[in-house]
Amino acid sequence: MICGDPVRMLSLVECLSRSGTLRRFSRILERIPNLSDPNAMTQTMTRRSTKQKQRSSKAPTKMAYYFSPTRTEGKGHQKQLLGGKGANLADMTSIGLPVPPGFTITTETCAAYAEAGNVLPSGLMDEVHKNVRMLEKETGKKLGAESDPLLVSVRSGAAVSMPGMMDTVLNLGLTDKSVDALAEATGNHRFAYDAYRRLINMFGDVVMGVEHEYFEAAFDKIKRKYKAKIDTDVPTAGMIELCDEYSKVYRKHVGEAFPQDPVRQLQYSIEAVFKSWNSPKAVVYRRVEGITGLPGTAVNVQMMVFGNMGDDSGTGVAFTRNPSTGENKFYGEFLINAQGEDVVAGIRTPRPVSEMPKWNRKVHKQLLEIKDKLEAHYKNMQDIEFTIERGKLYMLQTRNGKRTGPAAVKIAVEMVKEKLISQDEAIKRVPAEHLTQLLLPSFSDADKKSATVIAEGLPASPGAATGKLAFSAEEAVDRTLDGEDVLLVRKETSPEDIDGMHHARGILTSTGGMTSHAAVVARGWGKCCVAGAGALTIDAAKRTVTVNGKRYTHKDTLSIDGTTGEVLVGELKRTAPKLSGEFATLMKWADEARMLGVRTNADTPADAKRAREFGAEGIGLCRTEHMFFEGDRISAMREMILADNIKDREKALKKLLPHQRKDFQGIFTAMKGLPVTVRLLDPPLHEFLPQDKKAQAAMAKNLGVSPKQVERRVAFLHESNPMLGHRGCRLAVTYPEILKMQVRAIVEATIACKKRRIDARPEIMIPLVGTRDELALLRKLSLETIKEVKKAKKFTGKLEIPIGTMIEIPRAALTAEEIAEVADFFSFGTNDLTQLTYGFSRDDINTFLPSYLELGLLDGDPFQSLDQTGVGRLVELASREGRRSRADLKLGICGEHGGDPASIRFFEQIGLDYVSCSPFRVPVARLVAAQNALASR
Amino acid sequence: MICGDPVRMLSLVECLSRSGTLRRFSRILERIPNLSDPNAMTQTMTRRSTKQKQRSSKAPTKMAYYFSPTRTEGKGHQKQLLGGKGANLADMTSIGLPVPPGFTITTETCAAYAEAGNVLPSGLMDEVHKNVRMLEKETGKKLGAESDPLLVSVRSGAAVSMPGMMDTVLNLGLTDKSVDALAEATGNHRFAYDAYRRLINMFGDVVMGVEHEYFEAAFDKIKRKYKAKIDTDVPTAGMIELCDEYSKVYRKHVGEAFPQDPVRQLQYSIEAVFKSWNSPKAVVYRRVEGITGLPGTAVNVQMMVFGNMGDDSGTGVAFTRNPSTGENKFYGEFLINAQGEDVVAGIRTPRPVSEMPKWNRKVHKQLLEIKDKLEAHYKNMQDIEFTIERGKLYMLQTRNGKRTGPAAVKIAVEMVKEKLISQDEAIKRVPAEHLTQLLLPSFSDADKKSATVIAEGLPASPGAATGKLAFSAEEAVDRTLDGEDVLLVRKETSPEDIDGMHHARGILTSTGGMTSHAAVVARGWGKCCVAGAGALTIDAAKRTVTVNGKRYTHKDTLSIDGTTGEVLVGELKRTAPKLSGEFATLMKWADEARMLGVRTNADTPADAKRAREFGAEGIGLCRTEHMFFEGDRISAMREMILADNIKDREKALKKLLPHQRKDFQGIFTAMKGLPVTVRLLDPPLHEFLPQDKKAQAAMAKNLGVSPKQVERRVAFLHESNPMLGHRGCRLAVTYPEILKMQVRAIVEATIACKKRRIDARPEIMIPLVGTRDELALLRKLSLETIKEVKKAKKFTGKLEIPIGTMIEIPRAALTAEEIAEVADFFSFGTNDLTQLTYGFSRDDINTFLPSYLELGLLDGDPFQSLDQTGVGRLVELASREGRRSRADLKLGICGEHGGDPASIRFFEQIGLDYVSCSPFRVPVARLVAAQNALASR
Repeated sequence: MICGDPVRMLSLVECLSRSGTLRRFSRILERIPNLSDPNAMTQTMTRRSTKQKQRSSKAPTKMAYYFSPTRTEGKGHQKQLLGGKGANLADMTSIGLPVPPGFTITTETCAAYAEAGNVLPSGLMDEVHKNVRMLEKETGKKLGAESDPLLVSVRSGAAVSMPGMMDTVLNLGLTDKSVDALAEATGNHRFAYDAYRRLINMFGDVVMGVEHEYFEAAFDKIKRKYKAKIDTDVPTAGMIELCDEYSKVYRKHVGEAFPQDPVRQLQYSIEAVFKSWNSPKAVVYRRVEGITGLPGTAVNVQMMVFGNMGDDSGTGVAFTRNPSTGENKFYGEFLINAQGEDVVAGIRTPRPVSEMPKWNRKVHKQLLEIKDKLEAHYKNMQDIEFTIERGKLYMLQTRNGKRTGPAAVKIAVEMVKEKLISQDEAIKRVPAEHLTQLLLPSFSDADKKSATVIAEGLPASPGAATGKLAFSAEEAVDRTLDGEDVLLVRKETSPEDIDGMHHARGILTSTGGMTSHAAVVARGWGKCCVAGAGALTIDAAKRTVTVNGKRYTHKDTLSIDGTTGEVLVGELKRTAPKLSGEFATLMKWADEARMLGVRTNADTPADAKRAREFGAEGIGLCRTEHMFFEGDRISAMREMILADNIKDREKALKKLLPHQRKDFQGIFTAMKGLPVTVRLLDPPLHEFLPQDKKAQAAMAKNLGVSPKQVERRVAFLHESNPMLGHRGCRLAVTYPEILKMQVRAIVEATIACKKRRIDARPEIMIPLVGTRDELALLRKLSLETIKEVKKAKKFTGKLEIPIGTMIEIPRAALTAEEIAEVADFFSFGTNDLTQLTYGFSRDDINTFLPSYLELGLLDGDPFQSLDQTGVGRLVELASREGRRSRADLKLGICGEHGGDPASIRFFEQIGLDYVSCSPFRVPVARLVAAQNALASR
Repeated sequence: MICGDPVRMLSLVECLSRSGTLRRFSRILERIPNLSDPNAMTQTMTRRSTKQKQRSSKAPTKMAYYFSPTRTEGKGHQKQLLGGKGANLADMTSIGLPVPPGFTITTETCAAYAEAGNVLPSGLMDEVHKNVRMLEKETGKKLGAESDPLLVSVRSGAAVSMPGMMDTVLNLGLTDKSVDALAEATGNHRFAYDAYRRLINMFGDVVMGVEHEYFEAAFDKIKRKYKAKIDTDVPTAGMIELCDEYSKVYRKHVGEAFPQDPVRQLQYSIEAVFKSWNSPKAVVYRRVEGITGLPGTAVNVQMMVFGNMGDDSGTGVAFTRNPSTGENKFYGEFLINAQGEDVVAGIRTPRPVSEMPKWNRKVHKQLLEIKDKLEAHYKNMQDIEFTIERGKLYMLQTRNGKRTGPAAVKIAVEMVKEKLISQDEAIKRVPAEHLTQLLLPSFSDADKKSATVIAEGLPASPGAATGKLAFSAEEAVDRTLDGEDVLLVRKETSPEDIDGMHHARGILTSTGGMTSHAAVVARGWGKCCVAGAGALTIDAAKRTVTVNGKRYTHKDTLSIDGTTGEVLVGELKRTAPKLSGEFATLMKWADEARMLGVRTNADTPADAKRAREFGAEGIGLCRTEHMFFEGDRISAMREMILADNIKDREKALKKLLPHQRKDFQGIFTAMKGLPVTVRLLDPPLHEFLPQDKKAQAAMAKNLGVSPKQVERRVAFLHESNPMLGHRGCRLAVTYPEILKMQVRAIVEATIACKKRRIDARPEIMIPLVGTRDELALLRKLSLETIKEVKKAKKFTGKLEIPIGTMIEIPRAALTAEEIAEVADFFSFGTNDLTQLTYGFSRDDINTFLPSYLELGLLDGDPFQSLDQTGVGRLVELASREGRRSRADLKLGICGEHGGDPASIRFFEQIGLDYVSCSPFRVPVARLVAAQNALASR
């Protein structure tokens, strides 16, 4: 059994949903955004449009499209009209594949049905009759005939795959009479009555709304009577009786007998499919997913074929290439003498298709030929379903196969080399989000299968990490320096923890969301983090974590999977990321195609270097606050904060200057030739002071002041809403000496670089500006400082340092035209802008966000994907009005949204010059930008 | 001496600024906004325009305007060209008043001077010569003549009174030679040399920039020589010597001799006035005050007259009516044989003008005639300056007199009755802000004069309160119930203190700004509050307040003046407000004129009743959270918060329901026939839980749960930024049962009222909405609840309860078009909207606001007067786009800005239907609305 393999999960996820192992896999995959049809984004659905356009309806002229080897009316591109399934059936038939014949009733017919108030359009049943007659002629069988009757299936299928609709009714055409005819024709009475009871059950349940449990009860009665443990133990006689019982159940709950006219069976089934399009579940699904513009679902009526007619029959699923690795090798599995449902029961183990030649060499050869034909036709890896009825192969389904990130890249690049697709098509083909899968280590599937999951949190920062538990930043640093691998386990993290977070292998928090401090910092570093694992009760004082009554201490080892949010017991093996040649090739192509600039958010030379390797074209956000936490800098920083006069403050700042200069020199050197946007000090000063009494006392001792003095300062700096408090440029306004020190450090570092012929290109970014005058004042102060330093350093060369601002306050966006008068560039700080535009605190949102998502009040976490309607309106407005006053204004974005594909598309569309994101998102952004560029050509 | 009288302060504030008593008065008056020219707002200045329009300059054709009994070229309406002073001098001359003749150099000449790079326009001095010659002919004296020389003064005067500019040079025309001529002509050598030394001093100081101290030193030398204690002890010989010494000082510091050519004196003085227009002080003043559109300052050259020529001479100031009470009685004071400067010295006591007949009946009669003439001409109360030279009366100045609020109302209404002005003019005449002065008790001037001010805070909520100190809400309640008058003294207040705040006579805090919790709540109640008195160190545990080393305990009595922010020692007498008949008359006229609706923010029947008396046309904001703090309600509320399942929550809510219903019934009854907008629960739940361990333990005991449980809940509800947290409609989304209980209470109360034939008109307002879907969901829930209650109560009558939302989140404003689809009304919550648009926390802004105001980065506290550029843009946009989707959308505003005149003007301009403000601001809003309506006719 290859159930642990993602392939199986990917293809069989629907019918195998009862299998425990697979259920876990599917959960995991659901968490990875966009792991659906890789072409999903180019499909005909419009996401997040606020007003749904109403289709004006006409009674469609042609309502059914026939498909068979002799005559096929539909075309593969008619997904909108025939649904995905119908279009592909027509398509496969057209290129000569052995598809059971049938016909597709159009989506427009569904729309006409709904608009008429659930009345079938006149003429439809005539068309159905006509098509059934063609089908009967083609197959030589007759619907409801008393010898070798024609059986058909009815399946729904809209242009976009959609749960919530009625799915399938099989074996239509069976009646009390034709069941015997089928028995005769197949020579298998049990098979025939099994098929009939399945029809009554399915039709009753799905079409007429009879509760499944009534049928179940009847079955149980028969099983008891025949002492049968499982369904297959029931003998033919029991099956015949069962059909009788089912008919009674049906009559009792429907109020009339099970229809003995196959055409009525068909008509009811078609109506049921149409109705299900507007079922509450389907409507909600479309609303939540923002799927609009679809007229309705199509209905596919198709001749039944059976894989359970003996050992010369069988059924299977396969991918034309390996969906896990992308390897160009036919990949799938099959079961002899079985139907899909038998696989579901889980009694028998499917065999890999590579073993098929031993069973039926001819069919295997035919499948390989079909595989090539399909890829040549669809120019994409296919996910197929097939049935062999008495040695004859039938294709039941084909569709573009889902695949992992690495597979997507490999397949796309190899298909270019195979001349199946163009470079541009390869770029469009890979879902950008999937690239992150290529860049991170992960736990091996084998290890994960055998490990115990004790909790699940949010997949805050992907990757995999293992370590013993450390309960404070200090502990994490100490034990790491002692050579241990530790996970930092905290209720939530704060900037004080930064050093510990940096040293730990991974970060695990019990509160906080996808944009909590821990999550944002970890993602920025590409460090594995699971946040908000609410099942954990962390007692930092006692150094224990309790989960479901079980306690873990600093001696225990846990593993965290930042891609899924799982917390596992023990040490799991990690597999390193392999940046394959195909990855590099794809990225090269992407860079050739894209127009949008891609920078990175990085605060250290190491991050800068890594981001450069990932293709960053500069730093869009270099935060300076992290620089103040290391070693003895924090002492000088605290000295500065404690100072109650400018002289003492300047004295402390003087101690910080050489550190800052060195930091900048390192970063400028790592990014030589590329711009580095340095954001001046942003967080409120209290974040640099310890909050607990003990640490305050230690700090007081260290600085030689009284503990009272520290306490008083902490109390003085306390704010009710620090996010809206004394921070950002407000610090520079009240303490201009801080700004001066930072600008001095930037300029001195630049001059030092230039003297070594290193092309340093700093840009000064002033945060949290809300009024033009703020920026004008601080710009002036910065320019004066630049001039002073140049003079002091006797530097006579060219030194152009653009000075700009973050647009992160709604008022700044609303007054961008004024602000642009004194700015060389804008960089949208969409994290804060989202906080203020929504009135949502990133740190507190998790108390109500789950309810909001559940109730559909939000499409998603607005800190992950930009709210284009509200926040986006401000960004667009500020861009437009900023450029109105200064046409050459450089525009970028450096919030978390800079790495989100949908947001990147929006930013490019409204004319931003670049996005800046965390190093690990840089390849994603490059690919999205390329896809945008190709889409707009 | 009547220095304690505001009259004196109002008129002499400038020249008497060295007098300690008056200095305090002037400080107080500066704090009362708009206490300047009552017509200021209709003047030619444009406030808060972001871009200053550049005047294109031409050399003016006529640069000087002559005025004298025989020929007057200027007109009273030419303030823009001649400055306020110049226009009034021309005007008084025209109507035949005895004004010393002279001429005015135009403001355009000043502009031309500046634009030419500080060069006098060609032709100016020719015009000056021409005018001087006319003046000489008129007076029969000659500038610099060696017998009876003409002396002139030079005074600046722009269209708007403006500190920071050069003010006055007197006695121009005196030289080494003409001083003797003056001595001869007046027969008073001391007088002549005294005048000369004053000229050298003033010219040297003001025109040439010689430090005043050098002259001072020279004077001291002379005084020592003549053993003179004060200036007037110096004999004539000393004065002659002094002129010599001054000339030396002048030569030393200027580098050349004091000019002996009177025309050069004149030219230098004119240039000095011109230059002072662009002095840094003047520029900053104009920027801060937002004064733009003025070309420059005018220069007034005028014949000198002297009140110090003997006992038949004198000087004085007066108001045509009593500026303190408005009584129609000539009111002022004079000094015999004195100049303005003598009054400054403070040696002699001026006498009330009523005593003048005893000294000079003729002049007194003449003054009374002039008074009538001036009022008939200016149709306004005048503030005049006059001098009597040897029995002849000269008018030196007239201008509209500053007045207190009560005086403004009385004067305006009486002038209508006297047929001096129209009703409309009366409405325009009263600065709306001043009305608050009529509604509040105050300390008597006499008492304040003798009391000690120990600290000054912000005038957070006007009025006057006295009491012993209480250090906790509990203490305030207990001691008040025991019959004591207490002031609640807290570092800052929180909703937990609400009961104590309500009981206390007044509130005094050491931190927090004009929009801190204490300030907002107190203003809402009209309760006196001084906030942010930083000099106080409050130790609540020890129950002491320390100020400047002195300690006050619960036994001490303090008084606070909420109009000035002063904290005084001991009990001061309060005078009750008298709502005069004139007040009622004016308000009636205002209501006839205005278009804008005025509602009030009120949470109790008492407040509602009071607001109705003040003319409120409904309640625009009825907060429901205060209702949960009283008595045993807080227990039920806490029980609800502690509940961890919906059943327990509903149980607790059931206990709250009858209280809420009763509250609403009371308010609806008090407001019968008028709309009452009820805002559903807004603050985060943690505000209802005690924050300190002891209170938590008490609460646990009270509710019969473990202290741990309370502690855990408090910890769970803790938020980093509560302002951006789980509050407002987010509570209703996560706990719909709270909303249901509140809506139920509203509907039940309405039905109960209706059954008693009381016309209750509730409106349901859902706070903190950010998306359309939030409101849609909660509107649906509310409508369902209304239906349920109607059914349960078997109520079949009409029950229309509009459901709307507060627009207080930027995103709501940006998506107003969508939101309006599901809203019957919008009410702009401009407090929160300002917080979020600026990213300013009201509670934390005081750490940087002072710097921002000082540096001119903000025009004022944006929580007091709406930021029209940024926040206003959102309000305007939301109004426009909301009405786009729903033309009949009702629009109001219920933030603190609803009581601010400038903001009200803005709101009316963009089309809001009503403003809602605290009860005490209702008359202000009514008057502003009337003024707007008149202005837009």
